[in-house]
Amino acid sequence: MNFELIKPLLKEDAKGKIVMLVMDGLGGLPLTPDGKTELETAKTPHMDQLAKEAELGLHHSVPFGITPGSGQAHLGLFGYDPIKYEIGRGVLSALGIDFDLGPNDVAARGNFCTVDENGVITDRRAGRIPTEEGQRLCNLLKEKINLPGVELFLEPEKEYRFVFVLRGEGLDGHVSDTDPQAVGKKAHVPEALKPDAEKTAELVREFVRQGNEILKSEHPANSFVLRGFAGMPKWPKFNDVWGLNSVAIAMYPMYRGVAKVVGMTVLHPAESMSQEIDMLEEYWDKHDFFFVHIKKTDSFGEDGNFDGKVGIIEEVDALIPRIMALDPDVLIITGDHSTPSKLKAHSWHPIPTMLWSKNARPDRVESFGERECLKGSLGSRFDANDLLPLALSHALRLEKFGA
Amino acid sequence: MNFELIKPLLKEDAKGKIVMLVMDGLGGLPLTPDGKTELETAKTPHMDQLAKEAELGLHHSVPFGITPGSGQAHLGLFGYDPIKYEIGRGVLSALGIDFDLGPNDVAARGNFCTVDENGVITDRRAGRIPTEEGQRLCNLLKEKINLPGVELFLEPEKEYRFVFVLRGEGLDGHVSDTDPQAVGKKAHVPEALKPDAEKTAELVREFVRQGNEILKSEHPANSFVLRGFAGMPKWPKFNDVWGLNSVAIAMYPMYRGVAKVVGMTVLHPAESMSQEIDMLEEYWDKHDFFFVHIKKTDSFGEDGNFDGKVGIIEEVDALIPRIMALDPDVLIITGDHSTPSKLKAHSWHPIPTMLWSKNARPDRVESFGERECLKGSLGSRFDANDLLPLALSHALRLEKFGA
Repeated sequence: MNFELIKPLLKEDAKGKIVMLVMDGLGGLPLTPDGKTELETAKTPHMDQLAKEAELGLHHSVPFGITPGSGQAHLGLFGYDPIKYEIGRGVLSALGIDFDLGPNDVAARGNFCTVDENGVITDRRAGRIPTEEGQRLCNLLKEKINLPGVELFLEPEKEYRFVFVLRGEGLDGHVSDTDPQAVGKKAHVPEALKPDAEKTAELVREFVRQGNEILKSEHPANSFVLRGFAGMPKWPKFNDVWGLNSVAIAMYPMYRGVAKVVGMTVLHPAESMSQEIDMLEEYWDKHDFFFVHIKKTDSFGEDGNFDGKVGIIEEVDALIPRIMALDPDVLIITGDHSTPSKLKAHSWHPIPTMLWSKNARPDRVESFGERECLKGSLGSRFDANDLLPLALSHALRLEKFGA
Repeated sequence: MNFELIKPLLKEDAKGKIVMLVMDGLGGLPLTPDGKTELETAKTPHMDQLAKEAELGLHHSVPFGITPGSGQAHLGLFGYDPIKYEIGRGVLSALGIDFDLGPNDVAARGNFCTVDENGVITDRRAGRIPTEEGQRLCNLLKEKINLPGVELFLEPEKEYRFVFVLRGEGLDGHVSDTDPQAVGKKAHVPEALKPDAEKTAELVREFVRQGNEILKSEHPANSFVLRGFAGMPKWPKFNDVWGLNSVAIAMYPMYRGVAKVVGMTVLHPAESMSQEIDMLEEYWDKHDFFFVHIKKTDSFGEDGNFDGKVGIIEEVDALIPRIMALDPDVLIITGDHSTPSKLKAHSWHPIPTMLWSKNARPDRVESFGERECLKGSLGSRFDANDLLPLALSHALRLEKFGA
């Protein structure tokens, strides 16, 4: 969707409320060709009833057939084309550990690694050092490194991975990777990719010099590489683009982070699915767009736990009456991508979606599931970017185009 | 559709005749989730029989989820992308009152308004003066204003609205609005938006000067604002693009107007639906593309009259045998947009469409209705721009692309 096309159509006095309930990795696969998917197996009387009154289909957020990452898939749901709106790897890493990335920050993804006496990388993961060892090395570097005029943050992720952040005036993320992404090579010297990033590149080179000196007698992690330097993107804000006052409710950092990137108000982390609905109720009067994120469908999918994923979908179904009791004008129930437990991974399969609204034209679909959605009016492979404009129309928040 | 792609494919000796029957605002909604739409409720034995033999689907003419105006929606049906082919507000207003806009004309939409002693707008609609008062003020201005070298037309629309037209050599519609579209502001001074429009801008400024002097002692409408200056667009002509000899049959000015904009031959206004079919019969041998427009489906939808809309659809169904008796090669039955009586307004819902032809691959659809169309081969949300090329192929008017 062209944001400039939507702008003049936004009604100023619109009041319709929209809930977007995203079950991460919702789409699934049957374990045998004649079997049912996780969603089809789950007993979901409430979602099935809504499906009878809703418009359904299956969406994809990146080109059809391609498997998206979580950040990209959520951008698609929020109406941002993930091919056009790129989030740098460093920013995704920072968001993933709930680092509060600000407008003057440049972030990168770091790996501790092992190098030989000539600086040639011999193990890109330093023997997968434990997370505690990563933590110790981050602390050591932070304590000893001195970079003039900027603040340095080094936050451990899992095992050998860490997040690198510089904070200061005049920084720019257009700096080349040091990570050659192969053993048998030396780390690259980072270079500015445009003139504005010269200061940042020099600070990174200095960080690399001092850091390697500090780590040289450590074992097995005696060096590190950095990649994906990036600052917070400066994109059109979700609320401005869609004329909404949005809020994000999620348990996990990555999803609150992506919501923050597009400028949503982000609430404190929820501790359970039920608490997420508590928060939806609490903030109902203050906002008109509610992004509610359910993580565990994806987690069970990644674990290959078919029954676990079915169980979570059933738990979510039991929460639906609490959402409907709030009287939303539009309720979207979907996923960001598929995570079939059969594959134990994200997949490219399109994602079952329902858009329930008081102004829907029901599709004669009898239940909420991948194959029933094939009969729906939204289409069997619609663009995730279509959802927001469509939701705005169903909520009677858009003027017509032309006379 | 890329017009350049079609051009070399047009057969020179093609004879197939195409009828495009547009029921304005045809698409609807059920009044309850388990109910039927207007079209599904209507008893339409003739259209249902054609549906069994036809290809069906639901189209949209502007980006999915957006509600189109009538002009834009018809451009979509005629194969012109309404985002690319913009019709100025002034042109639409002129077409809407059947003003015979020519190639040397620049039109704008005018509103009579009330201003205070400083020229600040206090009521943008001058208290919604009656149409007769608008007529009197238009006559007064026409009589007294003197603009050298051009002809001036001022035609009342409803209440405070009027159409402003300048006719003369060397005019250009790229002139900025005088309408600030808010109370508490003075009207803007109109400016040329490109050098070619300097002469037109100066004529408009002179019109504004003289007009305000003439109206200053009137009450409550003592001034006016103008917006949407535009000339007739210079687009590729429908007949050239599609290799057709087209004719438009319609009761209402707007639809004859849009047909005129794309260069169709436009017949005199019909006085009834039955007379529209009389005209179709009368002109059958002289043309090979027939745009037949039915207005009342939209009017009843706008009024929220479900049963009235059902009744009109049934009346149209009763006329189908007369159309089929002419032995058309292709008959398209569709709407320009949806106007569900439930919403009393245009809507974004896709529009049920059938393309009947001797060369159709029937879809196993049993009747003509929104939900049956979901099963059709044209798709549940196809681009209105696809219809013309498809109709040409079904009429055997296109060569194949490539060898």
